Amino acid sequence: MIRIAIVGYGNIGKFAVEAAQAADDIELAGVVRRASSVGTAEKELEGVKVVSNIDDLGKVDVAVICGPSKLVPELAEPLLKKGICTVDSFDIHTSVWESRCRLDAAAKAGGAAAILSAGWDPGTDSVIRTLLMAMAPKGITYTNFGPGMSMGHSVVARSKEGVKNALSMTIPTGTGIHRRMVYVELEKGATLEQVTAAIKADDYFAHDETHVMAVESVDAIKDMGHGVLLERKGVSGKTQNQNFSFSMSINNPALTSQVLISCARAVVKQNPGAYTLPEIAPMDLLPGDRESLVKSLV
Amino acid sequence: MIRIAIVGYGNIGKFAVEAAQAADDIELAGVVRRASSVGTAEKELEGVKVVSNIDDLGKVDVAVICGPSKLVPELAEPLLKKGICTVDSFDIHTSVWESRCRLDAAAKAGGAAAILSAGWDPGTDSVIRTLLMAMAPKGITYTNFGPGMSMGHSVVARSKEGVKNALSMTIPTGTGIHRRMVYVELEKGATLEQVTAAIKADDYFAHDETHVMAVESVDAIKDMGHGVLLERKGVSGKTQNQNFSFSMSINNPALTSQVLISCARAVVKQNPGAYTLPEIAPMDLLPGDRESLVKSLV
Repeated sequence: MIRIAIVGYGNIGKFAVEAAQAADDIELAGVVRRASSVGTAEKELEGVKVVSNIDDLGKVDVAVICGPSKLVPELAEPLLKKGICTVDSFDIHTSVWESRCRLDAAAKAGGAAAILSAGWDPGTDSVIRTLLMAMAPKGITYTNFGPGMSMGHSVVARSKEGVKNALSMTIPTGTGIHRRMVYVELEKGATLEQVTAAIKADDYFAHDETHVMAVESVDAIKDMGHGVLLERKGVSGKTQNQNFSFSMSINNPALTSQVLISCARAVVKQNPGAYTLPEIAPMDLLPGDRESLVKSLV
Repeated sequence: MIRIAIVGYGNIGKFAVEAAQAADDIELAGVVRRASSVGTAEKELEGVKVVSNIDDLGKVDVAVICGPSKLVPELAEPLLKKGICTVDSFDIHTSVWESRCRLDAAAKAGGAAAILSAGWDPGTDSVIRTLLMAMAPKGITYTNFGPGMSMGHSVVARSKEGVKNALSMTIPTGTGIHRRMVYVELEKGATLEQVTAAIKADDYFAHDETHVMAVESVDAIKDMGHGVLLERKGVSGKTQNQNFSFSMSINNPALTSQVLISCARAVVKQNPGAYTLPEIAPMDLLPGDRESLVKSLV
């Protein structure tokens, strides 16, 4: 049994608890939350130990970091130095390498391993992109997201002054180009113009066509379904026109959390250091003995 | 540079030479053929060393085994024992584990590594199936092949007495069920009834609906395009109805050979032993430094 702690209890944390409970080889040591939230009686946490300090959970093999991306490196670093493996779904694509270097040093110092950016993008999509490069080294891969709610973008939009609640939808317009449709509930006194300017100025939105609209209730329009279409047309050897397509239609936090829990299984099998998902043997993600896995999957 | 030898010069071998020539980090030491074929003047082999004994190629890091599946283990075993890494596209699904055990022992004895069954199915499809299991542990994956020519089945059909040439087409009928359409050119005196019985009795065909037809010329109807549709509907954590789909439309031997050449790059990075493709970190398949790969693919 692999003893894990869920660190953070937002959207991802909630689904991570479910994924841990559904896995026979994973033991949920408990949930780590802010001190102010400990004792809050969520019905679904009945029977689960909730603490504000991971040390209160006894021996923990893996910490599943479910905090917002910006906080992930600082949450993971001290745990790795203590010798606790970590997995996270850090999703700021441009900073993945920087985060990997930082966690790699901490992991090696603590004799632990980290799998970072292990949701679905970055994450399992990264594995598919890597595989397609190996299958057709020349060519272009397009990653088309959505339509669906981007949790990262919604959090960023909600963080702006004057925004009570926000939902950012990602709309694919083909060849990897996306539109962002942002629905905001305004605080009293806030203006849509100010909020729009603040959202569009953020690096999360600055590179895409972004539309911001005010709504009465974000909750009334919220659906956590999401999807992706990954396409590659390329060359294998000297043979042109090899066509590949991967698509999915999924509950976003449920998939992210499931990938994290599968990675909790893989991370304890790695040498000390930090890894992104394509640097891990996919079979390490699965429970069961190697012979059965090879016989059923290969 | 990784020095490789192509062992066998049929369909796969020809495309493997092209894929090796297209890769900047791979040096083609030469092609190993039956003694009777050495000196045959194929135009595309101009400038390529062709020998009947791999020892005549000098130092070889990796042997890319391109012989028929049934011969793969006996071709790979002595090379591994000599310390030469091997990659192969052994495609008899029911014997992959047996082959892995045999090559694992030889590889460990020689201090070399082997990646086996590394075409597209078994091979890259196996990686996708493994990944989908990690993303939605409960559910069913359907692998639908074709429509397209199965090289393995065509070779088996051609090996039957009375068959001059054969083409076996795989037709998907949904939910992983396939029809085999086998087109044969008969030898003089052979009857379609005898040939049909021999083909249907072979384990390659015995489990599928198989139709055998006589044609004037197999060459006139041969197209090496192929395809696959991999589908999974499953459960992530406790969330139902997660839908995934992977499809491709490809030149079959070109893709198989490209995967083999990408594996030649990966195999030299592994510890001694034998591995199937899902047991390898996908990023090992690619050339280039880790930092650039993580920045561009993750």
